[in-house]
Amino acid sequence: MANADSTSDQRELQVNLAERSYKIHIGQDCLKHIGNFLNEVMGRTRHAVVMFDENVEGFSNQIFEQLVRAEWRASPIRIASGEQSKSVAKAGRIWGEMLAAHTDRGSAVIAVGGGVVGDLAGFMAATFARGIPLVQVPTTLLSQVDSSVGGKTGINLPGAKNIVGAFWQPTLVVIDSSTLATLPQREYVSGLAEVVKYGMILLPDLFEFLEQNVEAVLAKDPTTVSHIIEQSCRAKAMVVEEDERETSGRRATLNYGHTFGHALESISGYGKLLHGEGVAIGMHMAATMAAHMGRINAELVARQAALLKQLQLPTQFRDADPEEMWAVMQHDKKVEHGKLRFILPTRLGHVELVQGIEQHQATEAIRAANA
Amino acid sequence: MANADSTSDQRELQVNLAERSYKIHIGQDCLKHIGNFLNEVMGRTRHAVVMFDENVEGFSNQIFEQLVRAEWRASPIRIASGEQSKSVAKAGRIWGEMLAAHTDRGSAVIAVGGGVVGDLAGFMAATFARGIPLVQVPTTLLSQVDSSVGGKTGINLPGAKNIVGAFWQPTLVVIDSSTLATLPQREYVSGLAEVVKYGMILLPDLFEFLEQNVEAVLAKDPTTVSHIIEQSCRAKAMVVEEDERETSGRRATLNYGHTFGHALESISGYGKLLHGEGVAIGMHMAATMAAHMGRINAELVARQAALLKQLQLPTQFRDADPEEMWAVMQHDKKVEHGKLRFILPTRLGHVELVQGIEQHQATEAIRAANA
Repeated sequence: MANADSTSDQRELQVNLAERSYKIHIGQDCLKHIGNFLNEVMGRTRHAVVMFDENVEGFSNQIFEQLVRAEWRASPIRIASGEQSKSVAKAGRIWGEMLAAHTDRGSAVIAVGGGVVGDLAGFMAATFARGIPLVQVPTTLLSQVDSSVGGKTGINLPGAKNIVGAFWQPTLVVIDSSTLATLPQREYVSGLAEVVKYGMILLPDLFEFLEQNVEAVLAKDPTTVSHIIEQSCRAKAMVVEEDERETSGRRATLNYGHTFGHALESISGYGKLLHGEGVAIGMHMAATMAAHMGRINAELVARQAALLKQLQLPTQFRDADPEEMWAVMQHDKKVEHGKLRFILPTRLGHVELVQGIEQHQATEAIRAANA
Repeated sequence: MANADSTSDQRELQVNLAERSYKIHIGQDCLKHIGNFLNEVMGRTRHAVVMFDENVEGFSNQIFEQLVRAEWRASPIRIASGEQSKSVAKAGRIWGEMLAAHTDRGSAVIAVGGGVVGDLAGFMAATFARGIPLVQVPTTLLSQVDSSVGGKTGINLPGAKNIVGAFWQPTLVVIDSSTLATLPQREYVSGLAEVVKYGMILLPDLFEFLEQNVEAVLAKDPTTVSHIIEQSCRAKAMVVEEDERETSGRRATLNYGHTFGHALESISGYGKLLHGEGVAIGMHMAATMAAHMGRINAELVARQAALLKQLQLPTQFRDADPEEMWAVMQHDKKVEHGKLRFILPTRLGHVELVQGIEQHQATEAIRAANA
């Protein structure tokens, strides 16, 4: 992974993977250059299927203009907002629309939206004609710092999120932070939970930067936002470069706070807690459990909780029934042969995969974290 | 690729790919050892979803017995025979059945049947939980010598075969030639077209072996059959090892006879001509075109036609309208940016990718081949 150019709010990262290597462009209004970015990496490709979230049609139109200027043919596919778009039925319809638009191996898919569109469009790119290039244009903070980098794509089955999917790395990622201006503050803040996570699992400097720049972060100051997005993408890329297909366990460190978080999302009814909110509460539970086990001291638990609160994130969910959460966690996709595992911190910037956690350890941590 | 053990009708090949390496076991009744083969390569995996063609339930039951003996849990999924099973709707139902059977990353998919089951089950394995191990147990000659090796998986959309899919290499291939005993002779003979193809594109010795052993081949003599399957898998593996994801053009050599062949299958109505029959006629058209262009002499055209006829394969399809075929070939999935390309022989055992063939060259060759 190459160094970023940090002299302005415009940044560029290089991710080097076995499957393919690609650039991440970060900065306010960098969407204006997408035509150049595309022509730089796309070889002879001159047709794009633009799959966009209905809520970001404006950004999608910007991309169309750039494509026309770059002499590309563009086929739009509108995606309804929300998790229900990630269905087998919707996938079937989109494959048909791609075929009707004369999509072939000389075409690319451009995903414009949050995690739902990125996951769905990514899976369409992974599977049409056995795989065509994918460009991620994430428009939410959560997708900018997490799902747009790393190559996970997928759709849902009833009762099982992301159970159908593929690893399919993007050929290009364009992160225009001006898309955050129209993002509801609660969703923006939810994305910050993943940024805190990167600080906890890998980058103490990022954690401290957040502590020292809470106001600029919450105010979406362009240079500040570009910095935290770049650091987050850098952290994600470092982990993914080491464990592209989740085989070594290294990639599992990205799930810090997520086992508890997913269970919270599930028992509260999907949609009530935002993903990042579940992760924030989940990180507090995980840190509390780590402290109970003597892996970290109480000071780090408190420091993490203080930062989350300053960033307006929740750290507790008092309605959580520990026994119900334990039952839900048994069905986590990451369970292998019935074994449950947790990512727990050992110090600021470092976590470990801990196997064989017993029920009473988890439920006591949940109770203590919510006390 | 390691050498095969050729001292009996039991053979073993090793295919070495970037994505993964795997063994191909070939021989009469080698299905009896599938439990051992599985335990040798599957690590901790002890659950298999067995997707089987309804026509080969007997072989599927043999596999179940072996799985039980090897202390595996087995979940059967029956697939109706025929191309219509490779639909999005069927894929959606199978993903649901896999979920209901508690399939997870510690499970494998075993595909028992011909190309339809191999393609469909392969796509299910490629996409469930972003990819789980796949075992191919091909039961038709065509799938034994072609589709079970090489990692192409996929389903159809109305009007577009295999347009949705993934490259997903098997972890193990088990080819029991005793499954050919119950295969209708016409289907067996159809598979021989692909064997002739390997002789033409890469293995002159295999071509000559076929010429010298027509009776033993048609009688399905076990050692003879094991030899031609092993040679075919070896040829396929050599090409796939060099061009795993169809990026260099090398893999396109496997399409010798197929551009004409697919067009013939299409204009005759799918199902009327068997795939291998279309390929046999297509190879005769391609060789005829190559002779017109001065790439080979008429003797090789005649020699290929003589072998195909001795093997009871067709070399002509008099109802073929050359203009209609040309129009259909324009829509071939291998077309990139509207350019059509053909694989043409230069001598026995060698072919080349020829770009920019004009309509009159193709239609004249079709007419001459059918004369």
